[in-house]
Amino acid sequence: MAHIQLPDGLPGIRGPMAFSPQTAEPLNALANALLQTDDGLSRAERELIATCVSALNDCFFCQTIHGAVASHYLGQEGETVVNAVRCDYRQAALSDKMKALLAIAESVQRGGKHVSHEQVAAARSEGATDKDIHDTVLIAAAFCMFNRYVDGLATAAPTDPALYRTRAAKVAEQGYTAPDGYRPPQPQTKELH
Amino acid sequence: MAHIQLPDGLPGIRGPMAFSPQTAEPLNALANALLQTDDGLSRAERELIATCVSALNDCFFCQTIHGAVASHYLGQEGETVVNAVRCDYRQAALSDKMKALLAIAESVQRGGKHVSHEQVAAARSEGATDKDIHDTVLIAAAFCMFNRYVDGLATAAPTDPALYRTRAAKVAEQGYTAPDGYRPPQPQTKELH
Repeated sequence: MAHIQLPDGLPGIRGPMAFSPQTAEPLNALANALLQTDDGLSRAERELIATCVSALNDCFFCQTIHGAVASHYLGQEGETVVNAVRCDYRQAALSDKMKALLAIAESVQRGGKHVSHEQVAAARSEGATDKDIHDTVLIAAAFCMFNRYVDGLATAAPTDPALYRTRAAKVAEQGYTAPDGYRPPQPQTKELH
Repeated sequence: MAHIQLPDGLPGIRGPMAFSPQTAEPLNALANALLQTDDGLSRAERELIATCVSALNDCFFCQTIHGAVASHYLGQEGETVVNAVRCDYRQAALSDKMKALLAIAESVQRGGKHVSHEQVAAARSEGATDKDIHDTVLIAAAFCMFNRYVDGLATAAPTDPALYRTRAAKVAEQGYTAPDGYRPPQPQTKELH
């Protein structure tokens, strides 16, 4: 049971987002800015970083939904790559650049100061740009937030993989959005108070 | 030296925010939604949660600036309370409700699953509402992100307390904003590429 009373039928982060629309809006905007772009890192690569950090944080909901979104983008090989990233990214069929960036993400998960100049130099030598390094650090940091939001409130997560696949297809098409039916409250003018 | 090339003269998180305006916008919107409101928890209480988690994460920039903002709101007693929260909130001159919420924040900092039903029940028995518990968890989670963003890129932080006091007064007045002079880039049409 969740630590607070959340709307029924909304798994994982979607319950707290419906509970608190005023924070859901910037959280979704951040997820879209970080994950819904191919500028530098591809969408699939961004979702793999999210999946890797969520697995390190042992957040079932986040690693499953972001793994499903990565898999959706990657097509046939997706599920194998995602499963490897959830277990040990070093064994995954990924480029050396992605492995170097995931090493940075793994350090961020432990704490910002664990990122070393050597790890950054290694990523650069595989072709990572400043933007790739920035985006890796911020995606990893953001999932240290999202994972704690989901598990810190003890939200419920379904176990049926088909539900995550369906949601992943919707995310790929529409981006990260507030739960269906939710409309942000209209700003009130001072006269109304 | 920071891990990536950041604009000169912007301390802590403000360098990466200038580097990446498209993510700075939702990050500032999130900070304002979480910290710039007295709905339930006061602004001072929210900043104290941010300060406490940033201290636990050993993030000098964040604990100093958010400590300065809390102190600005609290007035004469502010600095003493903030210093106690940075060292050990249990010894701070705070209500039992705030101490119960800071215990939850401390668990979130370790990882979402560390928050216990007992901690939540203890906060409730001191008068905490679902919204107070939600906001505490999300503020604590968000600072696990902000701290990692600041330290994961090895940003520079000034040590002069006067600089933080000046900035704190501005935050209290204007909220969390992108660095001065920054204007979001205009979206480019496809024809320009």
